[in-house]
Amino acid sequence: MASHWESFYATHLPPTDFEDNRKLLQEFCERHNRNNERIVLITSGGTTVPLEHNTVRFVDNFSAGTRGAASAEYFIEHGYVTIFMHRLKSLEPFTRHFNGQKFMDMLDMHEQGPNTTISVKPDSVDVLAPILAGYKTAQENGRILYVSFTSVSDYFWLLRAACECLARFGSRALLFLAAAVSDFYIPANQMPTHKIQSAGTAPNIQLQLVPKLLAPLVSLWVPHAFVVSFKLETDENILITKSREALNKYKHKLVIGNMLQTRRTKVVFVTPDNNYELVLSREQVLNGIEIEEIIVSNVVANHLDYIKIQKF
Amino acid sequence: MASHWESFYATHLPPTDFEDNRKLLQEFCERHNRNNERIVLITSGGTTVPLEHNTVRFVDNFSAGTRGAASAEYFIEHGYVTIFMHRLKSLEPFTRHFNGQKFMDMLDMHEQGPNTTISVKPDSVDVLAPILAGYKTAQENGRILYVSFTSVSDYFWLLRAACECLARFGSRALLFLAAAVSDFYIPANQMPTHKIQSAGTAPNIQLQLVPKLLAPLVSLWVPHAFVVSFKLETDENILITKSREALNKYKHKLVIGNMLQTRRTKVVFVTPDNNYELVLSREQVLNGIEIEEIIVSNVVANHLDYIKIQKF
Repeated sequence: MASHWESFYATHLPPTDFEDNRKLLQEFCERHNRNNERIVLITSGGTTVPLEHNTVRFVDNFSAGTRGAASAEYFIEHGYVTIFMHRLKSLEPFTRHFNGQKFMDMLDMHEQGPNTTISVKPDSVDVLAPILAGYKTAQENGRILYVSFTSVSDYFWLLRAACECLARFGSRALLFLAAAVSDFYIPANQMPTHKIQSAGTAPNIQLQLVPKLLAPLVSLWVPHAFVVSFKLETDENILITKSREALNKYKHKLVIGNMLQTRRTKVVFVTPDNNYELVLSREQVLNGIEIEEIIVSNVVANHLDYIKIQKF
Repeated sequence: MASHWESFYATHLPPTDFEDNRKLLQEFCERHNRNNERIVLITSGGTTVPLEHNTVRFVDNFSAGTRGAASAEYFIEHGYVTIFMHRLKSLEPFTRHFNGQKFMDMLDMHEQGPNTTISVKPDSVDVLAPILAGYKTAQENGRILYVSFTSVSDYFWLLRAACECLARFGSRALLFLAAAVSDFYIPANQMPTHKIQSAGTAPNIQLQLVPKLLAPLVSLWVPHAFVVSFKLETDENILITKSREALNKYKHKLVIGNMLQTRRTKVVFVTPDNNYELVLSREQVLNGIEIEEIIVSNVVANHLDYIKIQKF
């Protein structure tokens, strides 16, 4: 039996940087709501489930954050103001294209004592320039806000705070819930204080079900927003059934189903009316088209239709 | 009861990139052994314990890889050839000083169509230049080899392959085992194929003890090497006892004990002869001195003494 979401908040403290993040969210949303902008909240990356209060070990969800980070770039291209709520150190829009060594390898140093200069090699400029331009434009115009979480409890607190700010956007708010949130956790009052010792027998970890936040989110927190959730499976036979079950249960607008093995080239959109697949062709893959570009175009079209119908 | 290390290798397949990494290790070691170099193997970052074959969820160990990545820079400064065996996407030497956004923020773009140039802002050159110089020197002279692991099983395979190559260095080999290796795992034959479903009751995860590789490593694989292991605890009362227990059991040269809460400013060296603390003073902390610089200096001094005594 899933414990209720209200009791989760009552028994788990907010993260230490919570008030700072809440203020950032409020200021960001107020500024952009005045201009009647469309806004997207993207959640991205996995959440952890600590096994000890002084956390040495934790259960994690597989997710580099590629889906969320790539989608953020395309939402910005489509004119959305973007809250990028991501797992600390998961991939981020723009910077995702380069890891640390790639960055270092792009640089040439001209050593001249105090007049030393460092520049990007000419053959790397072509690749870097458009990405850097996108990054700088989003930063300088204040059109993206980065907030981060680590544990499933951090995520719960941040998500609710973001929803409180998004509610006033009405149907102009889009929630793109791509984070891989843990289904299970160990309640704070059942967790040992210190690192589990390995002497003697190996531990047995008893997990509990995490309350599903989609329920209060859709019905109470942002009832007019366009809410999109994701369903990841490894067994193709249950993907559409599980996706439609989620849609029927939470009554939001869209579930995007994907398989772990093929998620970079194929997804299925499950809406209240029908299901349809989006698949990258071989040619698109060879040309470096990302499926997130196709996903975001389709989500945006659905969102614009929805705004028209809602008329506020 | 811990299962034996030989049966672990017999029941867990090597990772898919294993043969490539083994060749890289062999070539790297042969080249440098010819020149009578001192060599260090640094392991860094945490290992994962997958909960499913098609892995969506896993148990992980807290570790950003700061200790290993910082230490690698100092070992290189001390003239060591370095194998940096790290968790994929954990911190790496040199690049650890900048995340993606910091890199982007250091860059200035001068847009001129096909003649666009990108350069590092003058006030960032001071910080970046020495780090970039260190990175390029190590790369260009082939003095560092990066190999990476994700799961505890990947780590087991890579560590044994590295030891096979290091053995011929005799006492000139130093093993600096800073990785946070899981104590527990789920054997391959007890793991479900697909993502654990959250319907109904929450899962109960039964873990088993991982065999301790330090035993065969010290006694069989690299019997003449200088082996250093780490012990991380959250409870200060048991730190030295646990560290000395490990030293007595595996008969290697040094255990470096550290507390999760104070690991950036204090460690304790536990040797066969005595214990002593290395502590950063307030002044050192304010001047940006890293404890890894002090740790590595001390380890290197101990290693040089050891080489003299061994005389080969």
